[in-house]
Amino acid sequence: MTGKVTGSSKNMKLFSGRAHPELAQAVAKELKTELVPTTARDFANGEIFIRFEESVRGADCFVMQSHTQPLNKWLMEQLIMIDALKRGSAKRITAILPFYPYARQDKKHRGREPISARLVADLLLAAGADRIVSVDLHTDQIQGFFDGPVDHMHAMPILVDYIKNHYPIHNLAVVSPDAGRVKVAEKWAHELGGAPLAFVHKSRSTEVANQTVSNRVVGEVEGKDCILLDDMIDTGGTIAGAVRVLREAGAKSVVIACTHGVFSDPARERLSECGAKEIITTDTLPQSTEGWSNLTVLSIAPLLARTIHEIFENGSVTTLFETE
Amino acid sequence: MTGKVTGSSKNMKLFSGRAHPELAQAVAKELKTELVPTTARDFANGEIFIRFEESVRGADCFVMQSHTQPLNKWLMEQLIMIDALKRGSAKRITAILPFYPYARQDKKHRGREPISARLVADLLLAAGADRIVSVDLHTDQIQGFFDGPVDHMHAMPILVDYIKNHYPIHNLAVVSPDAGRVKVAEKWAHELGGAPLAFVHKSRSTEVANQTVSNRVVGEVEGKDCILLDDMIDTGGTIAGAVRVLREAGAKSVVIACTHGVFSDPARERLSECGAKEIITTDTLPQSTEGWSNLTVLSIAPLLARTIHEIFENGSVTTLFETE
Amino acid sequence: MTGKVTGSSKNMKLFSGRAHPELAQAVAKELKTELVPTTARDFANGEIFIRFEESVRGADCFVMQSHTQPLNKWLMEQLIMIDALKRGSAKRITAILPFYPYARQDKKHRGREPISARLVADLLLAAGADRIVSVDLHTDQIQGFFDGPVDHMHAMPILVDYIKNHYPIHNLAVVSPDAGRVKVAEKWAHELGGAPLAFVHKSRSTEVANQTVSNRVVGEVEGKDCILLDDMIDTGGTIAGAVRVLREAGAKSVVIACTHGVFSDPARERLSECGAKEIITTDTLPQSTEGWSNLTVLSIAPLLARTIHEIFENGSVTTLFETE
Amino acid sequence: MTGKVTGSSKNMKLFSGRAHPELAQAVAKELKTELVPTTARDFANGEIFIRFEESVRGADCFVMQSHTQPLNKWLMEQLIMIDALKRGSAKRITAILPFYPYARQDKKHRGREPISARLVADLLLAAGADRIVSVDLHTDQIQGFFDGPVDHMHAMPILVDYIKNHYPIHNLAVVSPDAGRVKVAEKWAHELGGAPLAFVHKSRSTEVANQTVSNRVVGEVEGKDCILLDDMIDTGGTIAGAVRVLREAGAKSVVIACTHGVFSDPARERLSECGAKEIITTDTLPQSTEGWSNLTVLSIAPLLARTIHEIFENGSVTTLFETE
Amino acid sequence: MTGKVTGSSKNMKLFSGRAHPELAQAVAKELKTELVPTTARDFANGEIFIRFEESVRGADCFVMQSHTQPLNKWLMEQLIMIDALKRGSAKRITAILPFYPYARQDKKHRGREPISARLVADLLLAAGADRIVSVDLHTDQIQGFFDGPVDHMHAMPILVDYIKNHYPIHNLAVVSPDAGRVKVAEKWAHELGGAPLAFVHKSRSTEVANQTVSNRVVGEVEGKDCILLDDMIDTGGTIAGAVRVLREAGAKSVVIACTHGVFSDPARERLSECGAKEIITTDTLPQSTEGWSNLTVLSIAPLLARTIHEIFENGSVTTLFETE
Amino acid sequence: MTGKVTGSSKNMKLFSGRAHPELAQAVAKELKTELVPTTARDFANGEIFIRFEESVRGADCFVMQSHTQPLNKWLMEQLIMIDALKRGSAKRITAILPFYPYARQDKKHRGREPISARLVADLLLAAGADRIVSVDLHTDQIQGFFDGPVDHMHAMPILVDYIKNHYPIHNLAVVSPDAGRVKVAEKWAHELGGAPLAFVHKSRSTEVANQTVSNRVVGEVEGKDCILLDDMIDTGGTIAGAVRVLREAGAKSVVIACTHGVFSDPARERLSECGAKEIITTDTLPQSTEGWSNLTVLSIAPLLARTIHEIFENGSVTTLFETE
Repeated sequence: MTGKVTGSSKNMKLFSGRAHPELAQAVAKELKTELVPTTARDFANGEIFIRFEESVRGADCFVMQSHTQPLNKWLMEQLIMIDALKRGSAKRITAILPFYPYARQDKKHRGREPISARLVADLLLAAGADRIVSVDLHTDQIQGFFDGPVDHMHAMPILVDYIKNHYPIHNLAVVSPDAGRVKVAEKWAHELGGAPLAFVHKSRSTEVANQTVSNRVVGEVEGKDCILLDDMIDTGGTIAGAVRVLREAGAKSVVIACTHGVFSDPARERLSECGAKEIITTDTLPQSTEGWSNLTVLSIAPLLARTIHEIFENGSVTTLFETE
Repeated sequence: MTGKVTGSSKNMKLFSGRAHPELAQAVAKELKTELVPTTARDFANGEIFIRFEESVRGADCFVMQSHTQPLNKWLMEQLIMIDALKRGSAKRITAILPFYPYARQDKKHRGREPISARLVADLLLAAGADRIVSVDLHTDQIQGFFDGPVDHMHAMPILVDYIKNHYPIHNLAVVSPDAGRVKVAEKWAHELGGAPLAFVHKSRSTEVANQTVSNRVVGEVEGKDCILLDDMIDTGGTIAGAVRVLREAGAKSVVIACTHGVFSDPARERLSECGAKEIITTDTLPQSTEGWSNLTVLSIAPLLARTIHEIFENGSVTTLFETE
Repeated sequence: MTGKVTGSSKNMKLFSGRAHPELAQAVAKELKTELVPTTARDFANGEIFIRFEESVRGADCFVMQSHTQPLNKWLMEQLIMIDALKRGSAKRITAILPFYPYARQDKKHRGREPISARLVADLLLAAGADRIVSVDLHTDQIQGFFDGPVDHMHAMPILVDYIKNHYPIHNLAVVSPDAGRVKVAEKWAHELGGAPLAFVHKSRSTEVANQTVSNRVVGEVEGKDCILLDDMIDTGGTIAGAVRVLREAGAKSVVIACTHGVFSDPARERLSECGAKEIITTDTLPQSTEGWSNLTVLSIAPLLARTIHEIFENGSVTTLFETE
Repeated sequence: MTGKVTGSSKNMKLFSGRAHPELAQAVAKELKTELVPTTARDFANGEIFIRFEESVRGADCFVMQSHTQPLNKWLMEQLIMIDALKRGSAKRITAILPFYPYARQDKKHRGREPISARLVADLLLAAGADRIVSVDLHTDQIQGFFDGPVDHMHAMPILVDYIKNHYPIHNLAVVSPDAGRVKVAEKWAHELGGAPLAFVHKSRSTEVANQTVSNRVVGEVEGKDCILLDDMIDTGGTIAGAVRVLREAGAKSVVIACTHGVFSDPARERLSECGAKEIITTDTLPQSTEGWSNLTVLSIAPLLARTIHEIFENGSVTTLFETE
Repeated sequence: MTGKVTGSSKNMKLFSGRAHPELAQAVAKELKTELVPTTARDFANGEIFIRFEESVRGADCFVMQSHTQPLNKWLMEQLIMIDALKRGSAKRITAILPFYPYARQDKKHRGREPISARLVADLLLAAGADRIVSVDLHTDQIQGFFDGPVDHMHAMPILVDYIKNHYPIHNLAVVSPDAGRVKVAEKWAHELGGAPLAFVHKSRSTEVANQTVSNRVVGEVEGKDCILLDDMIDTGGTIAGAVRVLREAGAKSVVIACTHGVFSDPARERLSECGAKEIITTDTLPQSTEGWSNLTVLSIAPLLARTIHEIFENGSVTTLFETE
Repeated sequence: MTGKVTGSSKNMKLFSGRAHPELAQAVAKELKTELVPTTARDFANGEIFIRFEESVRGADCFVMQSHTQPLNKWLMEQLIMIDALKRGSAKRITAILPFYPYARQDKKHRGREPISARLVADLLLAAGADRIVSVDLHTDQIQGFFDGPVDHMHAMPILVDYIKNHYPIHNLAVVSPDAGRVKVAEKWAHELGGAPLAFVHKSRSTEVANQTVSNRVVGEVEGKDCILLDDMIDTGGTIAGAVRVLREAGAKSVVIACTHGVFSDPARERLSECGAKEIITTDTLPQSTEGWSNLTVLSIAPLLARTIHEIFENGSVTTLFETE
């Protein structure tokens, strides 16, 4: 037999886009490694330039990006990084999107609309991503948009633990801010010891087309400490409205919990003033408590680090949630 | 310039698998055409053989199959028909799946599961389908599983019209049988004049893992004529349980409405005896009222025929629902 | 340099569908391992559900399924298993199809037919299979239908060994039951010491279209112990007819050898009563000798186990047949 | 509605590579059109340059090439022509390969071999071909190598007609030169009024590996006018040997019929001197009767022209053979 | 024969992203049509939403977007529009990118860089674009990055015509601002009556790594009216430096001509003050002459309109440049 | 956990086509290995047959071919080798093309032309190549034609070293033979200590269309020792003409340097007699100094060997050029 035989090893490398380097650094620290030194800059006309400052050949590469504003720029940056890794002979490329962008456009609401969440999956594939890691997708079905493995992580254990440690469990009710997330609320209710369940029902006027005339609570919340939950909060309008409706319905207090605190203007004002006792979120997107009266930010970095570790070591990501 | 120039025409052809030829014939009749004569038979070991008895070259082909039992056989038959059309030089192939199979497996519920609904989309694409038509997908996101146009039709207008014509509207309540379909129920509530909304909440015991101990109605149903709805009813266990819970909660009457009446054993017994006043469904799957005391079957054929007509004529499928 | 480097290992895992678990267990035993525990069940409407009960991440996965009745169900089950492995981050997926389904439809016999054997290859690829292992494909060209490596194993050495050990070699003739397998019969003739060769020629009447009026033996079989061979026997009509024609032509005895004993009804009756001395087959499909007077089943498991071992260890599958 | 609507027409254009322009011109003449003027030349280092001298935008393009020597060059030329058509916005590209190159390598005969016939199909697809037309593929299964429509034409009717018109039918026997084409010979035998069938059986010595020691006729040919047929004749060694064996077995005369007369050296010498009464072939490859004593060339052009016409007009290619 | 046959027509529709609607409107006006009414807006977190307000089914769709700042957003918007057209059953989708973004990153300048211009082509393909139209690509090879037809238009005839009409031709010299575009300058020199040619040569110091120490004119420009040309001008640093070097070398006057006036800060200042007599550009990107002392903008709309017309009518785009 | 775990190793194997085995052997020797024994032969009609004589399963395979005359044959041979490796279960396939064929057709010069350089990349991908290694691509953009890693090596350091060692550096000028390679010449000028730069400008007559009437040197070459460089020299017409023009312009001497010495007839005569002092090239293509008066051939084998070593060991190819 001709040829040369040598032993084989594997090599994990962690990369970060420019959107949220603090999260990537926290993950790197958990993994006891460092981010790969990367040159990233914008040309004057907005084109992004990327170069990695060490060889990526044969490496198992994890590319983190948080899709905060300007979201399209950061998505394009991640695609360009993936292209550079593919052409630089990376062995395997895992795109990590703690907050999956365009997740709300996961279906055509009416005709001639895009399914942008599928498009994002297709773009990642076209650029060269072999797999995806994300946290609390807007709908679970988005896993099926990518033609490859998707490791779908959940922040619920982190949020629930915090609530259990900070609030008396016996008087809780779990509330979904709309009809679409009652199923998720049901899971929380179980995790919080079988707490009662409610949701806010939007009634549209039958006289004026498409105009929401009233929100009503369906379920019993009077005298309850309500946990109002959502996967993401953008401008906070719906959620602040839900707090108001809950209080009108006699809720004793309201705590808001969400995985992705997008908090676009004027979310901070609305949520600080809506009467909620506390807003709990994670750092899947860059967060600052400055200017907030009641914001708590829990770190997602340990969860992401454990996920990367299991993927690299061919362990089991499923077991990370088995105590669920 | 060399070559030959002639006028161009287009040619619609309709094909049916063997699972539910009555539906296909009804559609053909609506379209004032006939099904393409097709030889379809099983070899002794179960392999399916297909041959079309007239040329399909250059035609705009619509291939109907209803995915009833034995479901995997009928899916395979549809894939084989599509392959034969592709190799026979069809111009465009539209797969029509009135009931989309494996729609419930649209996500990984736990680790190491398939996403079979995505797999079905991939198999259709691999066989050669250019587009899909389906009715009331289990979740809207399944549209995004196919890499091409999906015309997603809704049976709600047909069902709602029937209810409006047969039941007094003022005392109705709309009920979802579980937490996951409250959003759909909300749409129905609006269509039915702003009817009140409720759902059945499954509480799991916190002492014994994974054991459902009680179902409770969340929302007000006492004295109401309840419309209990679902996209599909399989063995009828959940839905019959929901009828019982609704009646215990004081509902005056319960009518069940679903698009896809799968009705696997022992659905007929359960639903005939559960106390529901009427069960309304459509013929996306083969139906018979024999042995039922209270089953009404509405035809989906006119809707499918209009859809095919709009697709063939490059009209607008969206407008079919615009009065919604 | 940043990142983490560790040694690399590889991990073989063996999976079985529900069609023929005995064969998979026999292979596992040969390999001194066990099948991966798998939950597989049917929903009431026939949809298949799969979940693997241990992590498959990074593993070299071999998925066995025997395509017996209901054949389309077992094919779909194998596709779903492959999808689950792909999404569960398997490193490499090898589909093992001891009997390749739809192999007879490997070409268009007339216009507007499918090429279902190619379709099967495309479906396996679409689901995520990286390679295929099969035994005695109906035609060798099916190897070229899959876009990737196909390890094509042969049962002939096993069958020939058995014949050499049980029958005197000097009076043998090798017979093909039709004109299409004379080439294969020629290989057998060589392996059996240069035995004479014959085949059964179907003459169609020239007066009545497509009607077979007579079968004739071409070649000398008088006084010979005939080995009548085929890749597969389905209902046994052709092969039983060939036995009769051979006996009429003066054959001393007839032994039937085939790799794939499909044996759909009424094969058992036909073959038990056709006058053949012995029918020799393998267990690529589930077999039972019950009710047979003259059936011998040889195990294909050792061959499959050696094949899997060579693939996993990057050895040579070709060498398994080099003594040929 | 915005936009512009106009009537639609379709435009057929015929292209020819440089390997066999006479055939393409004959086809063009049958179709009452002309070949698209094309610049084709070789650079000094052998690279081929192509430019079409009129617009191909939106046209239904048919690209003919005969794969004669230097075969790889002409294959590459056809691929380059297809690429130019794709980039020039052709609507549909049909590659016409009267003789499919590398058809003999349609399987792995032993390990670590290519399946070059599949590779050719993949290269045509990669270049941009939408469909293939070919004549008498070495094996029918090659149809399944291309992922798209393959129109597989047969020269048998042309050859059989000629034989019927030139030879008395009552004393014919049909002979396959080896065990692999007995099935095809059986079809001919039927078309020739149920003529008897025979083949030449190669026996390999069992003492010296891989050495052919003798050829024997299986079947009755004594006193017969033998039609010895093959899909292609390359150097003529096998076929000339078969003539000799047939004459030794008492054949009255031998006529050779083949679709593809490759006739590489020393075919002309061998076949002129082998004792065959006539060699009948077609012009799928360039032919000249010069230097031959007994060669008859039938034109394939009318068949190809009718095929192109049916494809362009969305007629039926299948019907061209229905009298079969 | 079954089925329905009707005449066929084709339907052109024109779409515009939000980056430069004026150009799209000018093109629509040339084509005597209107843009398809489109809802396009940003969600608070920057996600783009698109819906077309009339059916696009079966239409030949042209999607214009000018890739100005914020460039990544406009690229993503165009991809989303294409996805919506694909899912809305458009027949054919042509992406029009008058200025191709990321064209400067058309190769790896050093290791571990992306080839972003190829990535852009891949993203367009993944979204569903069938073809591309662009103007004056940074390098011609970018045509080869897209797997499909690319119609590459040239602004040179427009710019040269203007120069011929406004400047005496006999004293012109054509100058490339760097070594990489001398070939293009040579074409211009020919179009301008065989004008002399020069370029600016950057010498790097051999003592200090990578530091440009001097620019020198190679070629004779003394006393000449220099046409300094480039495909795009971004911040104007290189081009303003070239003007200075030319003037030091004795040029009588300098006129700058470029297709794509990106003009990122501080281009306006630099170019207004660099001593150039006139800057000529086109409106492939949005332009305003406000604040400029010497900017001339020529419209590319007629060229794009003629291109779209030829594509829709299956005419010849090549002939648009034949007088070249 | 079930399954079997073993250590993992990797295995490099080197393959050579028949075009230039000496180069492959030289590379093998540098790597201290041997070429994999391969059966390669031509059938009489020009079809190529390949079989590897040892197992390639799981190996990291490098397939070398030099694309000399007959170029299309050698390209096809390389594609067939790649197909055989893919089907033989190679782990990774790297195609090494020291001279990339069809590189000059890297764009459409006019309408309805192919982009053959992209086609070559597509064909390699279709056959199964995972990556490409090439030397001095005609344009750098060709890297972007392949959808995967391209390691683009440069012969400049080898050529420049030779020049520095054999010619006094202080009197050099670097000359591009046409306007298209001035950029490359600029890089050489820097490497050669900031030598002055010139190029040969082709002026076309404005009276007679497309006729080149004169070549002029732009830049100062009088009294200089000129290094005239190109990536490839085919028939030598352009380069011999450039030597003549340089000498007319007063150059003291001219040395020609090129990576790829194609040297089609009558290059040897032209270059031997053109007055150049020396012609320096490499052995990317087979070379012989026989019949030349002034040819120097430098070996590319050490560079290729180091490249293969870095790829196999997951080292850095970029660092091979870092001293640049």
